[in-house]
Amino acid sequence: MRTSGIRTDRPKGNIQMKEPNSLFLPENSLGIVTDLYQLTMAAGYFEQRKQDVATFELSVRHLPKNRSYLIAAGLEQALHYLTHIAFPEDTIQYLRQLPIFDHVSNKFFEYLKTFRFSGIVHAMPEGTIVFAEEPILRVTAPIIATQIVETYLLSIINFQTSIATKASRVVYAAKGHEVIDFGTRRAHGPQAGVLAARSSFIGGCKGTSNVFAAYKLGIPAVGTIAHSWVMAFENEQDSFRKFHEIFPDNTVLLIDTYDTLAGARHAALIGKKLKGVRIDSGDLLKLSNEVRKILDAKGLHHVRIVASGDLNEDRIGDLLQNGAPIDSFGVGTEMVTSKDAPALGGIYKLVEREYGGKSIPVMKFSEDKLTYPCRKQVYRTTDREGNFTGDTIGLEGETIEGTPLLLPVIKEGKICYDLPTIQEIQRTASDGLAHLAEPFKRLKDAKTYHVIKSKGLEAKRQEVEKLLRNINIT
Amino acid sequence: MRTSGIRTDRPKGNIQMKEPNSLFLPENSLGIVTDLYQLTMAAGYFEQRKQDVATFELSVRHLPKNRSYLIAAGLEQALHYLTHIAFPEDTIQYLRQLPIFDHVSNKFFEYLKTFRFSGIVHAMPEGTIVFAEEPILRVTAPIIATQIVETYLLSIINFQTSIATKASRVVYAAKGHEVIDFGTRRAHGPQAGVLAARSSFIGGCKGTSNVFAAYKLGIPAVGTIAHSWVMAFENEQDSFRKFHEIFPDNTVLLIDTYDTLAGARHAALIGKKLKGVRIDSGDLLKLSNEVRKILDAKGLHHVRIVASGDLNEDRIGDLLQNGAPIDSFGVGTEMVTSKDAPALGGIYKLVEREYGGKSIPVMKFSEDKLTYPCRKQVYRTTDREGNFTGDTIGLEGETIEGTPLLLPVIKEGKICYDLPTIQEIQRTASDGLAHLAEPFKRLKDAKTYHVIKSKGLEAKRQEVEKLLRNINIT
Repeated sequence: MRTSGIRTDRPKGNIQMKEPNSLFLPENSLGIVTDLYQLTMAAGYFEQRKQDVATFELSVRHLPKNRSYLIAAGLEQALHYLTHIAFPEDTIQYLRQLPIFDHVSNKFFEYLKTFRFSGIVHAMPEGTIVFAEEPILRVTAPIIATQIVETYLLSIINFQTSIATKASRVVYAAKGHEVIDFGTRRAHGPQAGVLAARSSFIGGCKGTSNVFAAYKLGIPAVGTIAHSWVMAFENEQDSFRKFHEIFPDNTVLLIDTYDTLAGARHAALIGKKLKGVRIDSGDLLKLSNEVRKILDAKGLHHVRIVASGDLNEDRIGDLLQNGAPIDSFGVGTEMVTSKDAPALGGIYKLVEREYGGKSIPVMKFSEDKLTYPCRKQVYRTTDREGNFTGDTIGLEGETIEGTPLLLPVIKEGKICYDLPTIQEIQRTASDGLAHLAEPFKRLKDAKTYHVIKSKGLEAKRQEVEKLLRNINIT
Repeated sequence: MRTSGIRTDRPKGNIQMKEPNSLFLPENSLGIVTDLYQLTMAAGYFEQRKQDVATFELSVRHLPKNRSYLIAAGLEQALHYLTHIAFPEDTIQYLRQLPIFDHVSNKFFEYLKTFRFSGIVHAMPEGTIVFAEEPILRVTAPIIATQIVETYLLSIINFQTSIATKASRVVYAAKGHEVIDFGTRRAHGPQAGVLAARSSFIGGCKGTSNVFAAYKLGIPAVGTIAHSWVMAFENEQDSFRKFHEIFPDNTVLLIDTYDTLAGARHAALIGKKLKGVRIDSGDLLKLSNEVRKILDAKGLHHVRIVASGDLNEDRIGDLLQNGAPIDSFGVGTEMVTSKDAPALGGIYKLVEREYGGKSIPVMKFSEDKLTYPCRKQVYRTTDREGNFTGDTIGLEGETIEGTPLLLPVIKEGKICYDLPTIQEIQRTASDGLAHLAEPFKRLKDAKTYHVIKSKGLEAKRQEVEKLLRNINIT
């Protein structure tokens, strides 16, 4: 049995030890950050001289549990990917030696060397409110290119959309009280923590504890102290006083290391300059009320109470419903993993291909997994106040009432879209939510928003399905 | 209302558009990939001239739902981080201008410029079976350094440990049938997909669809075709034949685009060279049986059936229990998000500090969140066959029966550990599981494995708790 992890089968001493691998995504090698079958299909299309221009659409078939809408997010990172994807020599050498490519010609690998994404992309701007089956993104390009980019696009948009949506629920429950992302330590790796900081800001958070994310995104970095600070000094009072010496204008103290009420009394000794206290454990309703009394009794009415510790929209809702005097919520695990619905089932499906000037709509009808053919557009109608009254998924170019939500973002492989700032994206989301009526966004038992398919699309679906059934089900 | 995402408040034309930001983790700027409070505390310790050498331990307080053990994973990426962390000039400029650091001296920022992690790290080798409360990793270093690295260490180890564990459950359910990671598209971003490929291999998967992960890790890259390949040709038969032309020795065909049984008949036309078929939807038990019959009737007994589509340990267990003739399972969403338990609550707590040659054990006793003081070691006893008989969490250096599981991996900031290959790590995990008795690893209602705290540790806990209560709860 080997459980020690120490290898005894190699000589020690001068031997070069293996360097640890970061596995970081390489900006210059994004071509192979995809599923193998995308590359075998790409090779197959190449070898079969398949010249089709294909259109794929990315959408979410069913909304996850507890979700009645989504907030589109991840487009900026998708655009970075599409404008940087390439296959440097080492990755091509790797692919060449995989046995599956044994019968693939050298020309395919030569082609990959010069591969760049050149195509047209339409997308809903980040922050847009989206519903089931609505295309969030549409890619039109030579079929090889559309295929290779599937995996990455799904991954980046699934995740950020999922977290922006979850964050918006948490923010909704907080009824105007500040929500801060504290989640990196529980995110699915440090990179997911950065992306979660971005998407939770889109969903309405006021800031993040993640310094790198705050720096790169230009959003507020927020933080207090940890238990370790308190434990690093002889006693709690001493630790509070010493923190205040260095951070006189930003003294927010964690008071539950030993005993929350004693901690509140110790924090109150700081006096008028105390800015806030944080409670991270126990019965937050009871404790926040008692801590408020202790602070108020010392005239510290201005001192804010921050709560943290496994919070989510339900717990925050309950706390506020019961009058907990909490001013700010630090939310981590539950938000950055979207814990009640940790995966978004976005799909990316071929809907149409053009060959020799002819457009060929396609669809699949696997059990429970039917897709609709043709390039589509989403049309949203609003009333005079701008409130959403319904969406229609129709054919691109069909005459349908409403504002089209998919906009061109890439043409000929180049970005043709003025990327909004993160603050603008956050505003898009909050404006959208403000115009979505209450029954469609309440946290429990929300009504299903009105989304229909246009007559033109339904007719096309029937026509294409009939044709494909005749050809294929034999 | 602005929902279009097109900004009308800026002049168009020659204006430079914002470049999309990848938000990729920067290998040379890892210092700020942390929570803000780690840096404020670091500044506080620096300004208070706190010279303590601190020891923090990383452990999981309670195992998540449905988990009776964990498989330690993520150490290699943790070691990469600890040996690369630094604060380049631009990140220091960013920190300097944050208002919270207004009263922090220039000397702290000068210190950060030269900051490198220099300390001692002990860890359980990746692949080790771990239980609740057992330290997986222990960091001893100047208190500033131990504090800064907390967030990243938790994030990388929480996630990989979570996925290696989940994968081992899926592999267990598959009873020797191959399990492949197909999950990148549903992982929490593309980087999480790469880390999930790594940790699911540690948990026993045979390969991954993620090409970058396969390349960097030296593990098998696996793939078939997607529905889009089938839809890209005039009919299914044609698409199958054309794929086979290019991949004659690796023809694994997806047969559910239109109708699974018709698809099976079309695939069978390939003849003896057909290698496998994949079913991705519908009733997998019924369909796999019917597909098997169709293939067998044509003498294609060797053709393998691959199943995919929202699989997890429960569904795989049910399928095999009912005799589904499935040879290989492609598992995505459920595995790479650990969907039934999507977050692992790893914590990283100060347990001891040394100052002026004196060792000061510390602990916290927040409600339900008590920690144990002192540097600890985990001792595992085994019977004559190597089967695990129980663990003791004791004091470092205490005389306790069993093999110590925490090994030195970094000394003076340098790796002192011969990193195992991923195949060796996988073997450590499978050997460990082979020596964990059935009741402790069954998928439902597993028994709790026997882990005790040593007398020495309990005595220390009582002594320290009494002392700290007297000082702090006033």
